[in-house]
Amino acid sequence: MEVHIGPGLPTPSGTPSGKEGKEPELREVARACLEAALRAVEPGRLVSDHLAASPLPQVTGGLYLVGVGKAAEAMAEGAQRVLGDLIRGGVLILPPASAPSGPPQPQEDPPFPVLLDTLQGLHAFRGGHPIPDAGSVEGSQAVLELASQCSHEDLLLCLISGGGSALMTLPPRGVSLEAVQQTTDLLLQSGATIQELNCVRKHLDRLKGGRLARAGAPAQVVALVLSDVVGDPPEVIASGPVSPDPTTFADAISVLEARDVWEAVPSSVQRHLLRGKEGMEEESPKEGDPGLGRVDWRLVGNNGMAVDAAREAAEALGFHTRILSTRLTGEAREVGRVLAAAGQEMRRSGEPVPLPGCLLAAGETTVSVVGSGRGGRNQELALGAALALEGEEGILVASLGTDGVDGPTNAAGAVVDGSTLSRARKRGLDPRDALARNDSHPLFASLGDLLLTGPTGTNVMDLHLVLVRGPGEGGE
Amino acid sequence: MEVHIGPGLPTPSGTPSGKEGKEPELREVARACLEAALRAVEPGRLVSDHLAASPLPQVTGGLYLVGVGKAAEAMAEGAQRVLGDLIRGGVLILPPASAPSGPPQPQEDPPFPVLLDTLQGLHAFRGGHPIPDAGSVEGSQAVLELASQCSHEDLLLCLISGGGSALMTLPPRGVSLEAVQQTTDLLLQSGATIQELNCVRKHLDRLKGGRLARAGAPAQVVALVLSDVVGDPPEVIASGPVSPDPTTFADAISVLEARDVWEAVPSSVQRHLLRGKEGMEEESPKEGDPGLGRVDWRLVGNNGMAVDAAREAAEALGFHTRILSTRLTGEAREVGRVLAAAGQEMRRSGEPVPLPGCLLAAGETTVSVVGSGRGGRNQELALGAALALEGEEGILVASLGTDGVDGPTNAAGAVVDGSTLSRARKRGLDPRDALARNDSHPLFASLGDLLLTGPTGTNVMDLHLVLVRGPGEGGE
Repeated sequence: MEVHIGPGLPTPSGTPSGKEGKEPELREVARACLEAALRAVEPGRLVSDHLAASPLPQVTGGLYLVGVGKAAEAMAEGAQRVLGDLIRGGVLILPPASAPSGPPQPQEDPPFPVLLDTLQGLHAFRGGHPIPDAGSVEGSQAVLELASQCSHEDLLLCLISGGGSALMTLPPRGVSLEAVQQTTDLLLQSGATIQELNCVRKHLDRLKGGRLARAGAPAQVVALVLSDVVGDPPEVIASGPVSPDPTTFADAISVLEARDVWEAVPSSVQRHLLRGKEGMEEESPKEGDPGLGRVDWRLVGNNGMAVDAAREAAEALGFHTRILSTRLTGEAREVGRVLAAAGQEMRRSGEPVPLPGCLLAAGETTVSVVGSGRGGRNQELALGAALALEGEEGILVASLGTDGVDGPTNAAGAVVDGSTLSRARKRGLDPRDALARNDSHPLFASLGDLLLTGPTGTNVMDLHLVLVRGPGEGGE
Repeated sequence: MEVHIGPGLPTPSGTPSGKEGKEPELREVARACLEAALRAVEPGRLVSDHLAASPLPQVTGGLYLVGVGKAAEAMAEGAQRVLGDLIRGGVLILPPASAPSGPPQPQEDPPFPVLLDTLQGLHAFRGGHPIPDAGSVEGSQAVLELASQCSHEDLLLCLISGGGSALMTLPPRGVSLEAVQQTTDLLLQSGATIQELNCVRKHLDRLKGGRLARAGAPAQVVALVLSDVVGDPPEVIASGPVSPDPTTFADAISVLEARDVWEAVPSSVQRHLLRGKEGMEEESPKEGDPGLGRVDWRLVGNNGMAVDAAREAAEALGFHTRILSTRLTGEAREVGRVLAAAGQEMRRSGEPVPLPGCLLAAGETTVSVVGSGRGGRNQELALGAALALEGEEGILVASLGTDGVDGPTNAAGAVVDGSTLSRARKRGLDPRDALARNDSHPLFASLGDLLLTGPTGTNVMDLHLVLVRGPGEGGE
């Protein structure tokens, strides 16, 4: 997997421009670290390595596969490499062809459902993301049928990755997809937290919140999970289809009431939740519920693995390293300022990392969009850092979305240093104004400071590096 | 200097409640670290220690003293302890009696000008802060007269601390104090940066921007400076009265034009700046300008000293330590989230600090006020951290304003941990709502989690601690 720094998409030749010796050294270090990080979370390899090291339990029946999420295709390929013909069949729900929310691509109008050549024998559907669509429902129906047919002697291998909440959506009887979408929209507009949203979604679905595991019982269920959520919580990733759900129908009603949208949701939703509260609909399985069956939940990849690989690469290049956190959240530009402040401290005092030093961080920031510009959270984080780094020598901050797609742009992120602002101004660009308008992308494109990978097929959120030269080493 | 944790002002007995064994251990560690930090930046001791270690140059004439800023009184006392009768006279400009912007106090209507008993022979004025007033001007006039009378054989000792920009304000002839205030207000409303504001202020004043040093020449000038600005820039602290000014009259006009307020500022201001641009008013002295005279600028205190003292205290209590940055800036609640994320990482992986660990940070955050609640940047930072720490065990975040006054409250800051949110909810408080309304103070007052010091007489901005127990140690 290659990371390219430049003004646009990687050149077809794939020659990283840095190897021509035109770029400052810190950029090459950043590129090497980020490439190592992406290699470490390649979903196919994560799955095949895991299965090779920790084989599946032997069963006397059949092995069936369910794959859902943005990395479903790569994870399934990894499983096939190890398991081959042992897989008797399965269902995949993949993101839309142009996913994940990347630049516009030639529309292919994919056949529906799609049977992929590379995954012979597996039924592959394309669902909607971030808004579930008819493909999500059709694929989910196929998943439910497959799981329900499994017997005690079978093994159901679930490959779960980010995006699964939307891609695998199956409203209960009597509730339409539109009613679920409307409820979700109302909650989002009301400022509901992701916890509140998930509580409601898990009670308007036949697979979320442990219900897929219940459908699969009494088969043995093994879940291999690539986490795109801070802290890797099983009940949150892809809405926890094989994990106990700590929330109830009553909780879901309370959330809608607390957010003042109970009166506004479709009556079919009200009816379903009220029936559930009265015990007339099946509650999601709780911790210890025997109905959950035998579930073996295994994390095969997360942002910590990406950070560890980046760290090893930095150390191999002679940098001292330290991890600030793998759980960073917050407003992107503000996180960028904090990382810049850490870089300034490193340069002056060798804290928190001795020089030459690399401070690593990972997580998922957010952007409060107020302007109409183009950018993404990684580019905005980088621009926030650039404003704080003006004129500083020997400090570089890089921010990369591991899925390769940062916001609605063709870039994965950006790199900044003490020269970013002056170079931008020389081109007639106003960095403060660009940040105020959420318009980081054109600025970095003009400077040639974008991080470009193309869609990577993985997603373990974002990665940030602060690289600082030794005190005796020259500036940029 | 004592730090108290509780619901209101320290009890008259001064007995820290922690010594009664009622509080969790991490709170005691935080209290000890913060007390050590405040002791390390007590302005009187900083000045007397500095003068004892680095005596002033011998002069054949007289030694005169100018003290301006929030710490002027304490710094002058420190100078008097070492220099005693050597000081022939001087002028102090102190903050208002109820300063720094603390809770309402009985109005004393101080005599004007005030001659303080404790500082015999020094003329002490009270200026306005944050808005300069007639006292600022009268005191500044006295400072200018004193400096102008110094001869080549004299030494002018300047004690400079935060707040000096407002406390020492002396508009040029033909420009009224009101015209300066109006110009400042217009710039602030236009979103001008502190750099832009300072550029204009330095060209509407007879002491700022190195002009005090020029007035003092040919005397030897020694400045002892307590920094309240991130990075300790001489030209920014108190508007740099004895430091070369990199900006010009033309820059000041450009700022007003760029911020679209040139047409709105009083005509007296326009006239003065235009005359200055045409060389008809004296430009502020630049780097290398012989008119600046002999200036020996010495930093006697900054937030790094406070952090180092806190670090020593933490290490004495068995904690591993590391400094994230002494240059933290950004939106307070977001910085709090980042610190919480670092604490979570420490608890799980011993990064960025091995356990038991203390991550230290310092700087000055900001609060974008959108609600009408009561709070300050330290309390808001703490509440931001609390939201991220819900349910976590063994992690504490403390945030303290070293001046002892956090926003318009009687507290210096607050401490939070994984129990803060649940304890607040048990009292019927809504932490998210409190943060949305910038109303952190009532919440922490109700919980008894305020940091209380009373006004400390010093100001090196804010201090933040993240304390994390060892993995084997119990929760709160």
